[in-house]
Amino acid sequence: MLDTAIRNAEIITAADRIRAEIGIRDGRIVTIAEDVGPAREEIDAAGLLALPGGIDAHVHLAQHQGGGVVMADGFESGTRSAAAGGNTTVMPFALQQKGQSLREAVAAYHAAAEGKCHVDTSFHLIITDPTPQVLGQELPALVKAGYTSFKVFMTYDDMVLNDAQLLDVFDVARREKAMVMVHAEGYDAIRYMAKRLEEAGRTAPYYHAESRPQSVEREATHRAISHAELTDVPITIVHVSGREPMEQIQWAKRRGMNIWAETCPQYITLTADDLKGLNMDFEGAKYVCSPPPRDNDSQKAIWEGLRDGTFDIFSSDHCPFRFEDDKGKDAPGARTSFRWVPNGIPGIETRLPILFSEGVSKRRISIERFVALTATNPAKLFGLYPRKGTIAVGADADITLWDPSREVTISQALMHHDCDYTPYEGLAVTGWPVRTILRGRTIFEDGEVTGARDAGVYLERGTSQAFGA
Amino acid sequence: MLDTAIRNAEIITAADRIRAEIGIRDGRIVTIAEDVGPAREEIDAAGLLALPGGIDAHVHLAQHQGGGVVMADGFESGTRSAAAGGNTTVMPFALQQKGQSLREAVAAYHAAAEGKCHVDTSFHLIITDPTPQVLGQELPALVKAGYTSFKVFMTYDDMVLNDAQLLDVFDVARREKAMVMVHAEGYDAIRYMAKRLEEAGRTAPYYHAESRPQSVEREATHRAISHAELTDVPITIVHVSGREPMEQIQWAKRRGMNIWAETCPQYITLTADDLKGLNMDFEGAKYVCSPPPRDNDSQKAIWEGLRDGTFDIFSSDHCPFRFEDDKGKDAPGARTSFRWVPNGIPGIETRLPILFSEGVSKRRISIERFVALTATNPAKLFGLYPRKGTIAVGADADITLWDPSREVTISQALMHHDCDYTPYEGLAVTGWPVRTILRGRTIFEDGEVTGARDAGVYLERGTSQAFGA
Amino acid sequence: MLDTAIRNAEIITAADRIRAEIGIRDGRIVTIAEDVGPAREEIDAAGLLALPGGIDAHVHLAQHQGGGVVMADGFESGTRSAAAGGNTTVMPFALQQKGQSLREAVAAYHAAAEGKCHVDTSFHLIITDPTPQVLGQELPALVKAGYTSFKVFMTYDDMVLNDAQLLDVFDVARREKAMVMVHAEGYDAIRYMAKRLEEAGRTAPYYHAESRPQSVEREATHRAISHAELTDVPITIVHVSGREPMEQIQWAKRRGMNIWAETCPQYITLTADDLKGLNMDFEGAKYVCSPPPRDNDSQKAIWEGLRDGTFDIFSSDHCPFRFEDDKGKDAPGARTSFRWVPNGIPGIETRLPILFSEGVSKRRISIERFVALTATNPAKLFGLYPRKGTIAVGADADITLWDPSREVTISQALMHHDCDYTPYEGLAVTGWPVRTILRGRTIFEDGEVTGARDAGVYLERGTSQAFGA
Amino acid sequence: MLDTAIRNAEIITAADRIRAEIGIRDGRIVTIAEDVGPAREEIDAAGLLALPGGIDAHVHLAQHQGGGVVMADGFESGTRSAAAGGNTTVMPFALQQKGQSLREAVAAYHAAAEGKCHVDTSFHLIITDPTPQVLGQELPALVKAGYTSFKVFMTYDDMVLNDAQLLDVFDVARREKAMVMVHAEGYDAIRYMAKRLEEAGRTAPYYHAESRPQSVEREATHRAISHAELTDVPITIVHVSGREPMEQIQWAKRRGMNIWAETCPQYITLTADDLKGLNMDFEGAKYVCSPPPRDNDSQKAIWEGLRDGTFDIFSSDHCPFRFEDDKGKDAPGARTSFRWVPNGIPGIETRLPILFSEGVSKRRISIERFVALTATNPAKLFGLYPRKGTIAVGADADITLWDPSREVTISQALMHHDCDYTPYEGLAVTGWPVRTILRGRTIFEDGEVTGARDAGVYLERGTSQAFGA
Repeated sequence: MLDTAIRNAEIITAADRIRAEIGIRDGRIVTIAEDVGPAREEIDAAGLLALPGGIDAHVHLAQHQGGGVVMADGFESGTRSAAAGGNTTVMPFALQQKGQSLREAVAAYHAAAEGKCHVDTSFHLIITDPTPQVLGQELPALVKAGYTSFKVFMTYDDMVLNDAQLLDVFDVARREKAMVMVHAEGYDAIRYMAKRLEEAGRTAPYYHAESRPQSVEREATHRAISHAELTDVPITIVHVSGREPMEQIQWAKRRGMNIWAETCPQYITLTADDLKGLNMDFEGAKYVCSPPPRDNDSQKAIWEGLRDGTFDIFSSDHCPFRFEDDKGKDAPGARTSFRWVPNGIPGIETRLPILFSEGVSKRRISIERFVALTATNPAKLFGLYPRKGTIAVGADADITLWDPSREVTISQALMHHDCDYTPYEGLAVTGWPVRTILRGRTIFEDGEVTGARDAGVYLERGTSQAFGA
Repeated sequence: MLDTAIRNAEIITAADRIRAEIGIRDGRIVTIAEDVGPAREEIDAAGLLALPGGIDAHVHLAQHQGGGVVMADGFESGTRSAAAGGNTTVMPFALQQKGQSLREAVAAYHAAAEGKCHVDTSFHLIITDPTPQVLGQELPALVKAGYTSFKVFMTYDDMVLNDAQLLDVFDVARREKAMVMVHAEGYDAIRYMAKRLEEAGRTAPYYHAESRPQSVEREATHRAISHAELTDVPITIVHVSGREPMEQIQWAKRRGMNIWAETCPQYITLTADDLKGLNMDFEGAKYVCSPPPRDNDSQKAIWEGLRDGTFDIFSSDHCPFRFEDDKGKDAPGARTSFRWVPNGIPGIETRLPILFSEGVSKRRISIERFVALTATNPAKLFGLYPRKGTIAVGADADITLWDPSREVTISQALMHHDCDYTPYEGLAVTGWPVRTILRGRTIFEDGEVTGARDAGVYLERGTSQAFGA
Repeated sequence: MLDTAIRNAEIITAADRIRAEIGIRDGRIVTIAEDVGPAREEIDAAGLLALPGGIDAHVHLAQHQGGGVVMADGFESGTRSAAAGGNTTVMPFALQQKGQSLREAVAAYHAAAEGKCHVDTSFHLIITDPTPQVLGQELPALVKAGYTSFKVFMTYDDMVLNDAQLLDVFDVARREKAMVMVHAEGYDAIRYMAKRLEEAGRTAPYYHAESRPQSVEREATHRAISHAELTDVPITIVHVSGREPMEQIQWAKRRGMNIWAETCPQYITLTADDLKGLNMDFEGAKYVCSPPPRDNDSQKAIWEGLRDGTFDIFSSDHCPFRFEDDKGKDAPGARTSFRWVPNGIPGIETRLPILFSEGVSKRRISIERFVALTATNPAKLFGLYPRKGTIAVGADADITLWDPSREVTISQALMHHDCDYTPYEGLAVTGWPVRTILRGRTIFEDGEVTGARDAGVYLERGTSQAFGA
Repeated sequence: MLDTAIRNAEIITAADRIRAEIGIRDGRIVTIAEDVGPAREEIDAAGLLALPGGIDAHVHLAQHQGGGVVMADGFESGTRSAAAGGNTTVMPFALQQKGQSLREAVAAYHAAAEGKCHVDTSFHLIITDPTPQVLGQELPALVKAGYTSFKVFMTYDDMVLNDAQLLDVFDVARREKAMVMVHAEGYDAIRYMAKRLEEAGRTAPYYHAESRPQSVEREATHRAISHAELTDVPITIVHVSGREPMEQIQWAKRRGMNIWAETCPQYITLTADDLKGLNMDFEGAKYVCSPPPRDNDSQKAIWEGLRDGTFDIFSSDHCPFRFEDDKGKDAPGARTSFRWVPNGIPGIETRLPILFSEGVSKRRISIERFVALTATNPAKLFGLYPRKGTIAVGADADITLWDPSREVTISQALMHHDCDYTPYEGLAVTGWPVRTILRGRTIFEDGEVTGARDAGVYLERGTSQAFGA
């Protein structure tokens, strides 16, 4: 007998839309049929869509920050918010600090996450100190242990790798078949701009956007792609913000290069003008993230890229800092210069509703493409497929029941994170998650997170399909 | 109890690869499960892939030809060959002759097909005489009756439409939500070139290729796209042969235009050099089709387009003429000038093996993409989805069991068509269909067509998803 | 002893800016030197630029119109206006009417022009009826006689050539080394749009612009380029109006094709909004020309093209119709539909000031580029060089003395044409011609046309440099 | 009375071709006329072209090299070779060594050049150590003193600037209106490739080419362009070698960016295969330069760029090392790894004949374009115009008399440099300089350098026209 039957839903995958029942046993989908037969638990999903549980492949939780700054969300609140947003898997980062061994870093993040995750998790490794020990021994061992993706930064004082280091990391990634995620903004260019702006007294949060224009992201994107070409390794350019960097990715893909790309909700809903707040006041700090939101033309371009396959995945880049908090956006110095405003905004809970509403409801993308961008492709790109990322027999029963016609106005009051604001306050959306099912168990229903704080498990991952599955 | 159970296969869809059993009842898939339970008929597909039955959206069968020329395949042999090639649905054309009403044309093709189809069929309408009667009354009525796609020609003496006529047809298509397939080659340009070549004594079959260079196809493609933009209607550019016309389609898609595209096996396996035969002899006539095969650079471009989504569907453009036959390739005049060689080559049976072998086995495209190009997308593009085009609960049980490692050398001896040659003679492929199942009944197995000649039904179709599903 | 010495000017060519004196004898420049010595006539050009006299390669004068419509300018007033605008050569059209021999047409236009030209002239041939006689005999003979350029139309009821005819004309042009100018707008597409607009009651002059959107011009441009590629002949796309057709030209040039292009003042100063008049009234008819002015984005694109060499020449397309005249813009039917508004606007006198002011004074293009676009390139493209188009020893002494800092507001009161309005009324410009010298004789000075009405001579021309000089 | 009259030549400028006489007095052109009157010296140039004396804007003479390596040419032999190649001005570099003040560097190069130059010279400054002193004081002062151009390197151990330094130099250049020349190859990428090649035992000279593929040059080009965009300064990308970096420049120019570009003879005549020598022997070292020559496709692209204006100037990048010399190509270590082969080839004497023959004689470019690329544009780009770069009244009488039909096979025996080989040995050219006239005095005639070794003067320069003249 089945543990659970979901009846009357329309089931959506990255290719198909069908009407059938889903039968679940031991946390996995064991049958999809016109009639799956009896089950201990009945779920009537009439009028709802059954979507693969969302996979948010780019979230920052409990991540170490310098200078007394603290992230608003740790693993508990972050994954709680994820569950409420229709997600069943999130992929936070384990950040190596300079001088630290990667193994230590990984152990520390496991310790922080242990027993505190409402959804399944798996870590990407942030490499900030690619010593011979890290490159030659730790990374190969960690990849074999299922940490099959790295992230590298081309900017930020405490994380930037220079070109020689990037090439070394890419070289290891090729040999070990690991996927490298690249934060592509040019360090020296940003410092140059920031210095000029500060000298000119342009210090309000808005100037964060002016300090890193599209050309800076475009240049770093081109550079990362060139390094990937030279080392013959697939990479993923993350959080692509606008037309110019996107065009570099299109160019590379058209040449047959093995380049993958991600974009995020902020780049289809916000613009640099949001950083102006009211008359350039500190309210703009709520929207400070990197790369910064661009303009309407770039939003248009991003939609084209979401539709035509330039973008493979759509993640939140959830990186929350409390606004009214001197350990958050209002950190020491933040009001004297945009350079001291912590970079990042919350979004783990609003990612799916925003893309569904702006994309599917407004007929910019098909619902199959929505599923591909938010679940199937992330699973394939990061070695979780076919256990995760689809609704199919044999897969984990990670299912989000979605009401495509529910109208909701996003507000902080609805959020389950520990941040004190949402940058999407007031945004009206059509389509909302009404139930999140993780490996067969309901963890969120009707606005309430009902799952246990230890419901999630840690996922060891296989090789990315970018290496040719 | 199930009628049929397929066990031990790896099921492939346009998005997923899973291991599960398929349960069939009354010709439809009613369950996919780890264990579908007992069934009257057991099919053990161990070591095989279960693919959605191939949908060949572009085939010419028993189509009227002028000048005493006769197609090698009628509905019986054509659909028999299709079944042997792993297909469960084919889409021939009902050709209106000048002066003829479309209804009459449709009735004539139904009469010819009745009781003679091994697989399911549905007709596209070829419009050669868009009179006010045809535009104002027949087409609207026929679309409502399920003939939801038209084909128009921009060349050929007896079929060419001028720009005013194309615009009129596109206009009707927008209003009635019909998909227009466009044969894009420029009529006057071809006549100009043919005349110059003939005057220069260049009359061998090879000069067919020189008489219609890529620029001629590129120009017509641009023109058709522009007309579609003006009339605001989706169209499909069929049998795209090379880099130049393809780039027009890429350009249109990148601008967000609602343009769809098809390519065919000949454009990834043959080149214009094949038309040279031996020392420019008549052997080259075997490869005369329009547009002609191009060169290696274009083959490379076509593969890029198959991978990156420029092409939505992959069809055979099966259009067979017997080689040693004065009603076929050796028609009166054919040896005096390429202009009299009937245009077209057979390929309904080899389409899937060629794309699988050259694409999937050689790792140029994923197997999910193979399924999308050959079954799911044709079904969606031409209003057959979700009844056809995927393996999912509720769909017709149209399934091809495929041996991905079988090595076969294509030869005329293996073919089931009534043509007397295959242009792919000697091509070694890896991957071959071993069983074709049409609505739950096996119609082809181990090289033998086992189904009845009336196994196929005629399919009325709905609206193309190009109109926004 | 010299006839004339011009002293103290800064002499500008397409490559150089120098300070020197110009010595003229028998209508030609015989010396350029620091000191040319004594002369009968002294011209002190202190503070002025000496520019090569403008060559307007695209003007319509006294051209036959159907339906009782009459052009505002014949040869006398048109060339008078040209002289006042700083021009020394204009190139009107000799229009063949259907059924008429080309020789007759040419003779008729010579008769009309004889003794009535203030500046030198030379005719392009408009071919509307490419009979075998025209193609095989008249054109070859006329080219040999110095009529080395043709114009063809892809639209207009009484002038449109179909693709077969275009190819035939291009073929003759290749053989005879004649330059073909192409009016690139798609006839059937315009008719389709016009019909739909009229059916919707959208008949104000503004809808002229909507009836021929950029896609219509882009398509015809691509088609003409493709025909030129097929026939291997250089062509000039005239009066390019916007970004989309321009991009086709850029694409062709980048591929090394022998394509040349022209744009006009209306496409950098006007937009389709000008056709709206006041509240969509008939005032908009003043701006009706084909192709219609586009939008700000296209103006930006055109400037890029003027700067980067996409455009080779800049002409007026002077085609004047009186506004308050039932033989002009207010022709019978014009107020009932845009289709009956005569197409064309005056501009022969304002071409140079507009490009100088908007281009040179506003630092969008260099002054050398101004000279190239308005004199040197037209001379080279149409076989007038080196007699015309530059200031150099041996060339005709066609010199315009230009005050680069004079500020003028363009108004009908300043014009010397016989049209009753200028579309540039109220446009403030910096830079103005103060003296026009034709073969050594001053024909315009300080606002007054001082030359005789028979000062101009007819110019037989050589082969275009596009054929490789 | 004139000092010199040149009669019967065809005079060529960047825009014009005319037949006239040239009159010279006190080293300057004072008259161009049909008859310039009597002169002390008569030069009969019947059958010859009079071209502006070549300006080679990119030559290395007597430049400091580390490791005991010495350049084959100092100022005396280098300028002698230049004169014999039809040049009247060359622009060598004054190289700052790390730790050295720029003023010292400049003084040292002046000392080395003093009294040893057969043609006029002017120095670009190579900045390798952009200290605050250099940026804040020395550069502004040197620009004011007429050193209005800098060169920076993105590679080479002893010269590479990082991005922060590049941005600082660009910033100074914008403020002071100096032109920055950029050697665009990525340092870390080359080191990465060189290390891998050496580890694989691939050490022959040929692997120099593999160690710096086009992607490395393309990336650095994109990066330099992005930095120029950020700092809002014009720059010149020098010695562009192939299609990929060239496309970056085309893209930038099409966007309206103020980017300039240079290419060199080696990129239209040599390919990477030349570095293979005979069976990968050391002979290949003769062709080692950076960037390395590419392939036939890139040669084709470079020609397109020369024709369409992508390239503004054509220089030699003369950088000679003797082949059979342990202070030259055969430096210590050079036979153990390509990394120790000095980078550079001679070419100051062959630049003009190669471009004339391959470009003008083979009808790939017009002769006006030849003049623009080799004389007029370099003069304008580097602040020498109008004193240099054209044949016009008021300019220095720098004139090369050129025989357009003389056929010569290039060989070391013909060269006047101190290098012991020419990389163009055996290349047959049509067109050759027969007389070089510097400020009115003949310095080279019929194969003999006849001028004094102190004939040249040092040229202080004005602002580049790239800043908007």
